[in-house]
Amino acid sequence: MKIIPLILMGCGGVGRQLLHHIVSCRPLHAKQGVHLRVIGVGDSRSLVVASDVLTMELNDKILLETCRIKLGGGSLSDLSNFGERKLFLNTEATKKVIDIATLLGKSTGLACVDCSASSDTVNVLKQVVDLGCCIVLANKKPLTSTIEDFNKLITHPRRIRHESTVGAGLPVIASLTRILSSGDPVHHIIGSLSGTLGYIMSEVEKGKPLSQVVKVAKSLGYTEPDPRDDLSGMDVARKALILARLLGQQINLSDIKVESLFPKEMGPDVMPINDFLDGGVLALDSDIQERVTNASSRGNVLRYACVIESSSSRCEVGLQEFPKDSPLGRLKGSDNVLVVYSRCYNEQPLVIQGAGAGNDTTAAGVLADILDLQDLF
Amino acid sequence: MKIIPLILMGCGGVGRQLLHHIVSCRPLHAKQGVHLRVIGVGDSRSLVVASDVLTMELNDKILLETCRIKLGGGSLSDLSNFGERKLFLNTEATKKVIDIATLLGKSTGLACVDCSASSDTVNVLKQVVDLGCCIVLANKKPLTSTIEDFNKLITHPRRIRHESTVGAGLPVIASLTRILSSGDPVHHIIGSLSGTLGYIMSEVEKGKPLSQVVKVAKSLGYTEPDPRDDLSGMDVARKALILARLLGQQINLSDIKVESLFPKEMGPDVMPINDFLDGGVLALDSDIQERVTNASSRGNVLRYACVIESSSSRCEVGLQEFPKDSPLGRLKGSDNVLVVYSRCYNEQPLVIQGAGAGNDTTAAGVLADILDLQDLF
Repeated sequence: MKIIPLILMGCGGVGRQLLHHIVSCRPLHAKQGVHLRVIGVGDSRSLVVASDVLTMELNDKILLETCRIKLGGGSLSDLSNFGERKLFLNTEATKKVIDIATLLGKSTGLACVDCSASSDTVNVLKQVVDLGCCIVLANKKPLTSTIEDFNKLITHPRRIRHESTVGAGLPVIASLTRILSSGDPVHHIIGSLSGTLGYIMSEVEKGKPLSQVVKVAKSLGYTEPDPRDDLSGMDVARKALILARLLGQQINLSDIKVESLFPKEMGPDVMPINDFLDGGVLALDSDIQERVTNASSRGNVLRYACVIESSSSRCEVGLQEFPKDSPLGRLKGSDNVLVVYSRCYNEQPLVIQGAGAGNDTTAAGVLADILDLQDLF
Repeated sequence: MKIIPLILMGCGGVGRQLLHHIVSCRPLHAKQGVHLRVIGVGDSRSLVVASDVLTMELNDKILLETCRIKLGGGSLSDLSNFGERKLFLNTEATKKVIDIATLLGKSTGLACVDCSASSDTVNVLKQVVDLGCCIVLANKKPLTSTIEDFNKLITHPRRIRHESTVGAGLPVIASLTRILSSGDPVHHIIGSLSGTLGYIMSEVEKGKPLSQVVKVAKSLGYTEPDPRDDLSGMDVARKALILARLLGQQINLSDIKVESLFPKEMGPDVMPINDFLDGGVLALDSDIQERVTNASSRGNVLRYACVIESSSSRCEVGLQEFPKDSPLGRLKGSDNVLVVYSRCYNEQPLVIQGAGAGNDTTAAGVLADILDLQDLF
């Protein structure tokens, strides 16, 4: 039996779903001869750890109880009645992760799984990498920090997986990695990597005003609490940055040309959210509608896309026109799509499309990543 | 430096392209800290092996010369003037592969790469697997032999890769494996997995007679020398069988419902190829055209597809109608496409599309497979 000891950082929707997947996959993984030994679970404030990380684990009962407590908005310290484990708080929690990585990096190995949405994990992850451990990320922030941080994190390319940082569980990173490792040079990538913006642009295409579509999207829970977090394009820019860096571009987030769908004077620092939703966004309707109409008169549709070119080091995200019958033009609803052009995929590009959001899919991508590391354990 | 010793079986188009890729990727792989040590290259009759398989390799000059000789229709024995290596013929060649696998399986490890199109390799591959070595297949035949052979070959799922058996280099197997390992149950798969039949059905859709399209496709080199090898659907059936078995169906090739595009009385055993091309196939024109027209009247198009369902163990290949704006309906030319429905990819299936043929792409898929095994060496 192959045993993979792991620490989970982040107990939000994806982290909790991952714990559920791990527990429910026990029989499947047993059949495959693998056991995921969860030795620690942490959130932004604390870390729960098995009493002896070399031999023990947080059992499934604790893992599910952790999910229940965190879903209810509780704290990991509420777990106090559940069997043998230790709780560490704040800096002690971070220190404990490093201690464990130091110990296990030299013996059984360790996978540090970051399902948080925090920028704060990058320092821990860099140390963990140095200690010979593996890292698995659903969190985009560490990989979109400085290029120095990125290069540090990918020092050992076989010990890092991060499928769910782009397109949720869609096999986008795995496929790109395969293409690159086979010496097939990727010329350029075009993608629609925000389900939210995909949905919004599909609806606007039908003739609905942007302001109305944004409100409906928010009420359906498709957007971030403040929809400007989607409309700014920064989430897409982060995904584009990760892809560009995979292609070898030594660039930072600030090097990416990002088109925001609202002007600076409507930004979250300047305008309260309700003023934006009830006023500001209305002023954007006619411009977007005009662009949609113009595109349509040319047989095109408007999509919020990322474009990454290897030769020119071009990396930009924003609204672009695409022919109606192209992979991006055909896109409907909240699907994500990535289109890859390389030597092998030249006239007929590689197209990967599907659901690019959702905790279930994202966590499944993380789990596949963890299992893909098993030969290192 | 990670060293992967490998033996290549098969020096046809894919095998030769693989050797070219290996040689041209030397600098890239050196940067990644991997070296592919080619210790043997074999065709259907012979095997050239490095003098000492534990320490030596066939150098790049020999590999390229092998490609040149085989491209010109020559034999591996024509290599006799090229430095230190040994030649084994017929049963001696097979015996030598087993000898090497016995030796390296216990020490450095070995990857046996089957780029042949032969049914004869399955016995060697089964022994190699037993000896603890890895196998990488572009050859569909070993995996479409009996279910017992299949189960034997996948005894150690982490030691086998076979991306290029379905959809050439398209990341179809890698993606399915990821989905399955994450415990996301695949409900059904629909695919168009023959570039040749994809091209033929696209052209027939435009109103051209099947007989004419087949002749053009043959003259362009899109079909097998006898186009009935494509039109029989058996190549698609083999790919469907591999996918069905991956989903756990314990079935054989004979269990698959296969629709041939020509009747038995026009089969290769009954009718000479020229009689088929100049006569037989003409009799098929009106039926196909009628089906295309009927489909079109329902807003559909006709595609040669495979359908695999997990729950019902259904696995069939043949002509089917698809809505014009579905992933298969949209397909043009010789692209392949695979559509996967699972728990995570339910309303929005996973769609993987792109060039599904060509020696370059197929060999790139094999090379990515070999590199994906590196943690076992």
